[in-house]
Amino acid sequence: MKNKVLLAIADGLGDRPCEVLGWKTPLEFAKKPNLNRLAANGSSGIMDLYKAGVPVGTDLGHMLLFGYTIDDYPGRGPIEAFGEGLEMQPGDIAFRSNFATLDDEMNVVDRRAGRIREGTDALAASLNGLKIDDVEVLFKEATEHRAVLVLRGKGLSAEITDTDPKKENLPVKLSLPKDASAAAKKTADILNRVLVEAKRILTGHPLNAERVASGLLPANGILTRGAGQMPLLDKIAEKMGYQASCVAAETTVLGVARLSGYRSVTHPSFTGNIDTDVFKKAHLAVDELKHSDLVVLHFKATDLMGHDNNPLGKVEAVEKYDAMVGKVLELIAEEQESITKDGEPCNIILALAADHSTPCERREHSGDPVPVVISGHNIRKDGIDTYDETNASKGGLGRIKAAEFISTLLDYLEVTEKQGN
Amino acid sequence: MKNKVLLAIADGLGDRPCEVLGWKTPLEFAKKPNLNRLAANGSSGIMDLYKAGVPVGTDLGHMLLFGYTIDDYPGRGPIEAFGEGLEMQPGDIAFRSNFATLDDEMNVVDRRAGRIREGTDALAASLNGLKIDDVEVLFKEATEHRAVLVLRGKGLSAEITDTDPKKENLPVKLSLPKDASAAAKKTADILNRVLVEAKRILTGHPLNAERVASGLLPANGILTRGAGQMPLLDKIAEKMGYQASCVAAETTVLGVARLSGYRSVTHPSFTGNIDTDVFKKAHLAVDELKHSDLVVLHFKATDLMGHDNNPLGKVEAVEKYDAMVGKVLELIAEEQESITKDGEPCNIILALAADHSTPCERREHSGDPVPVVISGHNIRKDGIDTYDETNASKGGLGRIKAAEFISTLLDYLEVTEKQGN
Repeated sequence: MKNKVLLAIADGLGDRPCEVLGWKTPLEFAKKPNLNRLAANGSSGIMDLYKAGVPVGTDLGHMLLFGYTIDDYPGRGPIEAFGEGLEMQPGDIAFRSNFATLDDEMNVVDRRAGRIREGTDALAASLNGLKIDDVEVLFKEATEHRAVLVLRGKGLSAEITDTDPKKENLPVKLSLPKDASAAAKKTADILNRVLVEAKRILTGHPLNAERVASGLLPANGILTRGAGQMPLLDKIAEKMGYQASCVAAETTVLGVARLSGYRSVTHPSFTGNIDTDVFKKAHLAVDELKHSDLVVLHFKATDLMGHDNNPLGKVEAVEKYDAMVGKVLELIAEEQESITKDGEPCNIILALAADHSTPCERREHSGDPVPVVISGHNIRKDGIDTYDETNASKGGLGRIKAAEFISTLLDYLEVTEKQGN
Repeated sequence: MKNKVLLAIADGLGDRPCEVLGWKTPLEFAKKPNLNRLAANGSSGIMDLYKAGVPVGTDLGHMLLFGYTIDDYPGRGPIEAFGEGLEMQPGDIAFRSNFATLDDEMNVVDRRAGRIREGTDALAASLNGLKIDDVEVLFKEATEHRAVLVLRGKGLSAEITDTDPKKENLPVKLSLPKDASAAAKKTADILNRVLVEAKRILTGHPLNAERVASGLLPANGILTRGAGQMPLLDKIAEKMGYQASCVAAETTVLGVARLSGYRSVTHPSFTGNIDTDVFKKAHLAVDELKHSDLVVLHFKATDLMGHDNNPLGKVEAVEKYDAMVGKVLELIAEEQESITKDGEPCNIILALAADHSTPCERREHSGDPVPVVISGHNIRKDGIDTYDETNASKGGLGRIKAAEFISTLLDYLEVTEKQGN
């Protein structure tokens, strides 16, 4: 019988013992019957995403979990662009961008254009498709005042400075080349001309006239930071020949998924926080399993609680994650007949992982390893029946790297290439 | 007291839980008192041959177990040539070859020359030693209609196409260079001339006249595929300075052993299957221990049962393997006085390993790790007293790579080089 894999990822799950939890970790403290059930039915282990003791971001953590190496990391800009649905091509330059309020002399009045939330799609559309010389401008709104800018053309470079002065009442900074290359000079020049042109177009946009009439600050300019160039990077799922999906709220995770050639699935009821609709998530993930070989189901709130140093909140988040996994198990049992592979019944392997630890005491990502599980009838039973950092460390998978973890999952899909004969 | 090592390898041993075995693995299910006894008297672990989740072939698996890296892998042709007893030199080109029946115009009548089984040694001898310009032809019969062809000379290349058309009633294909190098052109030309010359010599061979008179198809031609060039590769046992032997049935394993500078020991009672004479194997292995520092004792049937998706057969194979190891223990106890090192009594360490997993459900090699044991009075006791995939994963060796495993064994032989001072 062929296998399919559903991998649930709890963002920032790993933690350290917390005083308020009687020196237990949130995962040790939480009630989590479904996560424990998965541990009992397979093999556990602890995983270093990159290296022991080296923290990674959510973007790189997911890239490593999806089978890329650290050398493949294209920087934040390109990943955010993918996250916002801009399909980047090798050589493209992506920038994180803000709508801002500028005065007539390009001084920054408000870096966030009065925290504009509505109409940014129309404003972005007015800039998208602009051409400056031979360079095409792609522009897409993101959450609130944020947006993504992409420059597409020959001979561009990310080695240029930011235009965001980071404070109000300062002029927009001219982008400058950071090296002597013609590409950096060209890119900085084009970017500066984009900012001027954006100011002209946005100032004339009827939506800004309405905002001014209503006493709101106009979103009449853009600021940029964090240039990153899209490398030559295979879509890993396409290259290795499997169908994959990712169900998530967070743009960064959706961006990594798109960059990897995964179908990205999201829904307005996904908040990326503790109030997200975990049952909807479970439903969509099990739906994806009907046509995909590998489905990643991402849950964010555990990470946020770590950043907030909120151990009890993290316990609650873990319990919500457990409920989501329980729903997945229920739905798989109910819908088993419609989950097939090449028209045949198939076996479903469930896996648990995290993209990094976010210990409450640290309020930031750490290099602590994260607990993982691979679970199913046909997975070796190692006698570990509890899913937490310490029990996992005694499991049959041992201490592994993210590359080994994903390679093991892909081997169940039979897409890894045999070496030798 | 100095140490010697006997390493037993059960091919394709690792597996996954099987429904017919009550969701145990064949190794978990089998009665294996001798394997358990070794586990109890030493340290266990799980081993990735190359990388977690990446399957390897028997040839590469054994090369890694013998201390080579994946970059040393010369391809199947050279390993088969060594397996058939053709001692290859760096630069030689090896081909997998068939005796075939050809008509007068070099069309293939039968790719296997009527599945010829007898007299191929005489036919091969008639081709062996042929010279075409400055290139020497080595030719050796293998099982049934199979043979190995080696071209030896300066400036040869493996970048040439196959001559086997893969179907009957097609002409023998002319070998063509795959690149623009002079070496590829030369090698393809020589090979084409070898085929014509072989046709002439074999057609005139009295054995073929007899075959035709008996109404059998003559073996009057050869076909080739899978060119591989022998790299510059040290015989690892010679380079590191130890005496090693390998007792096996399978040509591939014997080939890796010869390539590694091991004495290769086989016997007509070794079938490479469940009916092999395991007691004879044990006897020959213990005999080798009298003059070798490291003896590898290979058992094949476990792999075949995995390929056949035969969990109960694999249980039987494991029990036969266990009996072989039991016989080894018995013989070592009996013959202890004649097993010496530099004329002194020595200690014998027993080790257990596998070259890869072949899960029944997969019917192919997988990247699941394999259980290993290192056992002896002087080996750390880790409290694991059962030899199977899951118990091994809790053992004192942890999760290691084949390179670490063989290096640990060689360190007991005191042939590894101290680094630093």
